[in-house]
Amino acid sequence: MIAKDSPLLAAARREATEYTPVWFMRQAGRSLPEYRRIREKYDFFTVCQQPDLCAEVTLQPVKRLGVDAAILFADITTPLVGIGIEVDLVESVGPVIAAPVRTVEDLARLRDLEPEQDLGYVLETLRILRRELPETVALIGFAGAPFTLATYLVEGKPSRDYTQVKTFMYRAPEVWRALMERLSAITIAYLQAQIQAGAQIVQLFDSWVGWLGPADYETYVLPYSRRIFEALRGQGVPLIHFGTTTAGILDLMASAGADVMSVDWRIPLDAAWKRVGMEIAIQGNLDPVSLLAPREVLWSRADDVLRRANGRPGHIFNLGHGLLPQTNPDEIAALVTYVHEQSQQYRSQGAA
Amino acid sequence: MIAKDSPLLAAARREATEYTPVWFMRQAGRSLPEYRRIREKYDFFTVCQQPDLCAEVTLQPVKRLGVDAAILFADITTPLVGIGIEVDLVESVGPVIAAPVRTVEDLARLRDLEPEQDLGYVLETLRILRRELPETVALIGFAGAPFTLATYLVEGKPSRDYTQVKTFMYRAPEVWRALMERLSAITIAYLQAQIQAGAQIVQLFDSWVGWLGPADYETYVLPYSRRIFEALRGQGVPLIHFGTTTAGILDLMASAGADVMSVDWRIPLDAAWKRVGMEIAIQGNLDPVSLLAPREVLWSRADDVLRRANGRPGHIFNLGHGLLPQTNPDEIAALVTYVHEQSQQYRSQGAA
Repeated sequence: MIAKDSPLLAAARREATEYTPVWFMRQAGRSLPEYRRIREKYDFFTVCQQPDLCAEVTLQPVKRLGVDAAILFADITTPLVGIGIEVDLVESVGPVIAAPVRTVEDLARLRDLEPEQDLGYVLETLRILRRELPETVALIGFAGAPFTLATYLVEGKPSRDYTQVKTFMYRAPEVWRALMERLSAITIAYLQAQIQAGAQIVQLFDSWVGWLGPADYETYVLPYSRRIFEALRGQGVPLIHFGTTTAGILDLMASAGADVMSVDWRIPLDAAWKRVGMEIAIQGNLDPVSLLAPREVLWSRADDVLRRANGRPGHIFNLGHGLLPQTNPDEIAALVTYVHEQSQQYRSQGAA
Repeated sequence: MIAKDSPLLAAARREATEYTPVWFMRQAGRSLPEYRRIREKYDFFTVCQQPDLCAEVTLQPVKRLGVDAAILFADITTPLVGIGIEVDLVESVGPVIAAPVRTVEDLARLRDLEPEQDLGYVLETLRILRRELPETVALIGFAGAPFTLATYLVEGKPSRDYTQVKTFMYRAPEVWRALMERLSAITIAYLQAQIQAGAQIVQLFDSWVGWLGPADYETYVLPYSRRIFEALRGQGVPLIHFGTTTAGILDLMASAGADVMSVDWRIPLDAAWKRVGMEIAIQGNLDPVSLLAPREVLWSRADDVLRRANGRPGHIFNLGHGLLPQTNPDEIAALVTYVHEQSQQYRSQGAA
């Protein structure tokens, strides 16, 4: 059965599609000149807080690249900003939080999120996007997962080894649980509101969870990811679960309950799919650096991903992590076309 | 059969031992106050270049912690320093190379290594250590693998995503091959000389290779790692192959030909062992951050490693990466005792 509406939504439901749908993490952003022109005038959060502008930035990659989805333009820390945490997005560093959360007293600063009141601009952006997007292009909402939010909140900035956040959870497990419960509640409220405002599929970004070993993941993180997916289960939208360097904990992550597991390039796609189980869809997994390679290398890496997916329903083509800012938009657009064409041919020839 | 000499060497040969041997990457270094006292007077490379002092620093963890091996105190970049590359070890950054290697012309700076002439101090240190170490404590030599050396040489400093080194290999594959051949020759000469000077087992550190996907690993790295292990195969010492975030490429790495695969904490030890094959010994794989946790968490994580090794011959207990500088030496020593005692009990009770 070939879906008539959005190939991406169909693939997330593991329905057959004419070609493999494609989108890229960070497809809206610094690799597009039209985005950089806007950022000359406005800082990141100012763009987010003006729904017309934010919708424009979200739509830029749809127009220029021909991707099969638009993903809300926002930062992982957006809901923290919404509840009044001061976040500074420092160029070539990432989110910096001047007053980290490290004690039980600090938890008081993590109040409930009231989406309409605190992040009305996000919801308005989604409403605009749903009006403007064609039916074939899916609208993706997203949120950072509690662990990944906690890395920023506890460390105060991006980290190389996450020593502080791990030490926190080992030494103060009760405070950790309270922190994860606060962040889970915020994430659930945020994603439910996004779905109500028009997001047709949502991705939970647990970008740094792969720095945890299996026992730590199971003890300190999995219960909260599971709680989030359970809360969203009844909303009628597919759920994507993303992390990097997760090859060793994929089975545990898959047990959290998403419909689509998003994996990075450090594991062959077929090995990953086998690990998470064939009843789950898979997203990935090109190395973003491949887009800086000559075409023959780029095509060979894209072919490898498609070959491992083997034309099976349930594959969403993506990178293993976000697009690098220095990527040439022409290369990105060429890759979208290439994946569409090759995957269509692959289907017509019949998968091996 | 219980080995009478060094439990660590026996385990590397997959022979039965009374208890699981233990050593730690970076066991000599900043977590020991006696090391920090020496570093108040001398910089890192000055310590390395004075064999008596270097041997003393290498022996410090053997005396204080009761580990089953001493590992030569040196940096991964030591052979580069030996051939005249200027390396600056910047505190809390890592090795910085002011003049990176990025063109075919730059390769001329990578001349052959003449170990006795260029790194006589390393070899003299090993000779002293072999005289001073008891038979039961193994002497480990080591070198950085060509890819990991190349990350420093090409990027000029530690990197978060290795974009420059990957782009280099994609765009200039012939220069890349020449670079890897130069580095392989240097590494082989360096390790052969270490073995001749008394190293009883050697570890190849490919610390950052886990940032490569399987196809890149196979194309750009594996041939050179294989060449190194082949060249060392006849020397009569066991060979250890180390990397981090390697869960997705473990089978490929194992095919390079080491006797022991060293894995990080991001994969359960039993899953890793199964992946590399039971005819290879395994080293690992506690998260270094566990040593900052309260005892009950530390014991539980150590138990998990031992339980997954299941008392099977061929396990060397280690961390998944180096000790963190802030680790309390009393905790490290307690862990050595704990692993020795628990693994002995485990054997006497009979593994499940």
